[in-house]
Amino acid sequence: MAPQLDGYFKQVDKLSESFIERLGKAVSIPSVSADAARRPDVVKMSEFLVSELKALGAHVESRPLGVQPGTENLDLPPVIVARYGSSPQKRTILVYGHYDVQPARKEDGWATDPFKLSVDDQGRMYGRGSTDDKGPVLGWLNAIQAHKEAGIELPVNLLMCFEGMEEYGSEGLDEFIEKEAKPGGFFEKAEAVCISDNYWLGTEKPCLTYGLRGCNYYSVTVSGPGQDLHSGIFGGSAQEPMTDLVRVLGKLVDTDGKIQIPGINEMVAPLSEDEKSLYEDISYSMANLYESLGSKTGIYADKENTLMARWRYPSLSVHGIEGAFADPGAKTVIPAKVIGKFSIRTVPNMESDKVDSLVFKFIKDEFAKLGSKNTVSVKLLHAGNWWVASPKHWNYSAAGRAVEKVFGVKPDLTREGGSIPVTLTFEKATGKNVLLLPMGSSTDAAHSINEKLDRRNYIEGTKLLGAYLHFVAEEEMKA
Amino acid sequence: MAPQLDGYFKQVDKLSESFIERLGKAVSIPSVSADAARRPDVVKMSEFLVSELKALGAHVESRPLGVQPGTENLDLPPVIVARYGSSPQKRTILVYGHYDVQPARKEDGWATDPFKLSVDDQGRMYGRGSTDDKGPVLGWLNAIQAHKEAGIELPVNLLMCFEGMEEYGSEGLDEFIEKEAKPGGFFEKAEAVCISDNYWLGTEKPCLTYGLRGCNYYSVTVSGPGQDLHSGIFGGSAQEPMTDLVRVLGKLVDTDGKIQIPGINEMVAPLSEDEKSLYEDISYSMANLYESLGSKTGIYADKENTLMARWRYPSLSVHGIEGAFADPGAKTVIPAKVIGKFSIRTVPNMESDKVDSLVFKFIKDEFAKLGSKNTVSVKLLHAGNWWVASPKHWNYSAAGRAVEKVFGVKPDLTREGGSIPVTLTFEKATGKNVLLLPMGSSTDAAHSINEKLDRRNYIEGTKLLGAYLHFVAEEEMKA
Ligand SMILES: [Zn+2]
Ligand SMILES: [Zn+2]
Ligand SMILES: [Zn+2]
Ligand SMILES: [Zn+2]
Repeated sequence: MAPQLDGYFKQVDKLSESFIERLGKAVSIPSVSADAARRPDVVKMSEFLVSELKALGAHVESRPLGVQPGTENLDLPPVIVARYGSSPQKRTILVYGHYDVQPARKEDGWATDPFKLSVDDQGRMYGRGSTDDKGPVLGWLNAIQAHKEAGIELPVNLLMCFEGMEEYGSEGLDEFIEKEAKPGGFFEKAEAVCISDNYWLGTEKPCLTYGLRGCNYYSVTVSGPGQDLHSGIFGGSAQEPMTDLVRVLGKLVDTDGKIQIPGINEMVAPLSEDEKSLYEDISYSMANLYESLGSKTGIYADKENTLMARWRYPSLSVHGIEGAFADPGAKTVIPAKVIGKFSIRTVPNMESDKVDSLVFKFIKDEFAKLGSKNTVSVKLLHAGNWWVASPKHWNYSAAGRAVEKVFGVKPDLTREGGSIPVTLTFEKATGKNVLLLPMGSSTDAAHSINEKLDRRNYIEGTKLLGAYLHFVAEEEMKA
Repeated sequence: MAPQLDGYFKQVDKLSESFIERLGKAVSIPSVSADAARRPDVVKMSEFLVSELKALGAHVESRPLGVQPGTENLDLPPVIVARYGSSPQKRTILVYGHYDVQPARKEDGWATDPFKLSVDDQGRMYGRGSTDDKGPVLGWLNAIQAHKEAGIELPVNLLMCFEGMEEYGSEGLDEFIEKEAKPGGFFEKAEAVCISDNYWLGTEKPCLTYGLRGCNYYSVTVSGPGQDLHSGIFGGSAQEPMTDLVRVLGKLVDTDGKIQIPGINEMVAPLSEDEKSLYEDISYSMANLYESLGSKTGIYADKENTLMARWRYPSLSVHGIEGAFADPGAKTVIPAKVIGKFSIRTVPNMESDKVDSLVFKFIKDEFAKLGSKNTVSVKLLHAGNWWVASPKHWNYSAAGRAVEKVFGVKPDLTREGGSIPVTLTFEKATGKNVLLLPMGSSTDAAHSINEKLDRRNYIEGTKLLGAYLHFVAEEEMKA
């Protein structure tokens, strides 16, 4: 039987102005985790959440994570954990979000003050953190409030985990989650996990996200001379590290994105007919791609191959070179030591360690072919695994029904090309299904200037989060 | 008959402490031409020269060059021109130097205050501009003074041209020299030119420099997307400008410095047996190369090929990439527009325009082979021609005799891999032979921290400049 949600929805509409006010208060706290000088604001934002949650009647704890590694005595922001309800008759759902934000300065090109929520006449609510991730975090609080004020019981026990360091590497979080997922821990009873920290594929149709690519990030260092040289004096008499480096980097991938490192593509899981058919229905077009690229320089001419290239095939990008001349103008330097940076987006069934050894071997072999007296070294700078969940799990089918109820359409089932490492951490630590349930749209410009969240996405999104809790409370447990 | 120089030499020795004091005064004026805020100090340095030259009885003029292009109202430093003697019975020799210096800050790693001349117990005189080019400029003033005080007549009419913008592109100088070399101009009567603004090949043996390579500096821009992209989101679905750029840059030159652009090497003047034999005698060793490289990553195993590669063959260096990720750390960006920078050192008989068209064609052909939808453009950022003078000219043989007289050895005849553009300007404008007669040694660290000039190089160098004026005054005039 489908849940009766009309009372809840009406209450959300009634409270919508106060929900926007709540978002305005949150945006006005510049909780930039990357900037040590802003740390007091990050803490202030955690205190804001604590006080809001307490006012709603939740049990709240502010958990310290200790000193930030690499600093003398800069404390990490706390993780805010909260529980609303603890009935043994109800399912327990764990939700995650982050209350820190990316850096933002008006001078970067913002049309409005980034730390003042500015709503325009089309309902676009501009402000740093509006969509990433303060809007979704407050969505959970809004849902609790609307239930309370409508006199409707929350159908699940809701566990919340809100961190303050996501935009700067989630320092300390993995260990925290692992500990709290164990018997006796705060997350022990969680039966499913929901994360709202990504975006719709477009602007009209909601989606559920069931996969993420991993990322192995490498550096290749070529060095020779003891210090930078002048090309007039030494050009022609010394082997140049930059010459060697561009020759090696030029071998990694072709213009159409095909990785040239033997063995990499062979590890990719074959495409089944079943999976292939999923892509046809997805609401996406080449026009969408060209609009987001700002050019027509896509590799594929059709939607299906484009989406598969982003979600289920690996890719290799060369990001840049450290140590070479990178400024405007002309400088006649022979750099002594240059560090190329590239990364491989990984997918099922690529094994991270095996990728590393294929990469290391390839670079060394290609470098050896050059016959250079310079030296090369390859390093893995960081690795995060790919993740794929079953979109047929009851956690997903419940979310799908909630989308249909709120938006009147079945959601797209999507994957993402980027990584959200905490997803994998929750899956491993709890052993439960993890659902990515986005609130914002593809045009929200998270991490960019003029970040925004549409009023519709915030208010209907709040309805969606509440509806999800109802459907997931009674969905038949399968897969 | 060899000139009688003993009285002059004795007087230089007698005055040596006051010459060092003069250098100390000059070094204490931070005449950094690259820094607009230091412009008053550059002007102060020009005034110091004017007053010193006047005190010596020279005719001096401070010539304005107008407003610095690209600025509102920042005046260029003046060119100081001076004349000492104007006898129709004497030859007229034009000398050039520059009184501005490279930037320097103690924090860059200087062991001493860069703008205070510090003499250590081995006679090394540290200070910005000591060797480049205040020492040599003052060498000419010292020579005049020692002649005067010894009561020995200067055997030539000496014309001097000292500029204050050399380290920042010699803005406005070419036009000035061209004008003054014409009938009625200040340099009209010059019969030979001497420039002291380079360095010995080593530390023991003086040299005369008769050739310089040119430099054509290029940028290759590859662009595609409208803005930088996230490699997680777009990797695999878009053609990446950085992929195309490293593939093209990797085709330009091989690890052993051989330029891969068809037609370039074919333009190089063939090596005659005569020229080849010049290299054998030069005081230089592979140990010198390895010491200055700080590594054993040279291309050739022998002195002759090493020096030829630096002086008489072209070279190609890849300097860096603008627009890509160049900082430490790991950033998952797909840069939207990347600009590769490389330059070719040119030699006789390469024609600059032809080099450009071969480069442009090669880049376009190689890019076309990639089959990329991105766009490429190649630009020449600047070009300076190569220069070779006849080392058999009387200007050189006179200088060679002066070296033998002062140092007791025949000088090495060298070329240089880098460019000193004013050399070519003087040759073209006056139509006379130009000699490069260095004062400092290879260890002086011009443009680096801890720049110095050895006391010996300064004092014996002052003797050399004076002796050169005597020999050049009576050398038989032959090509
Ligand atoms: Zn986020
Ligand atoms: Zn974010
Ligand atoms: Zn100089
Ligand atoms: Zn210089």
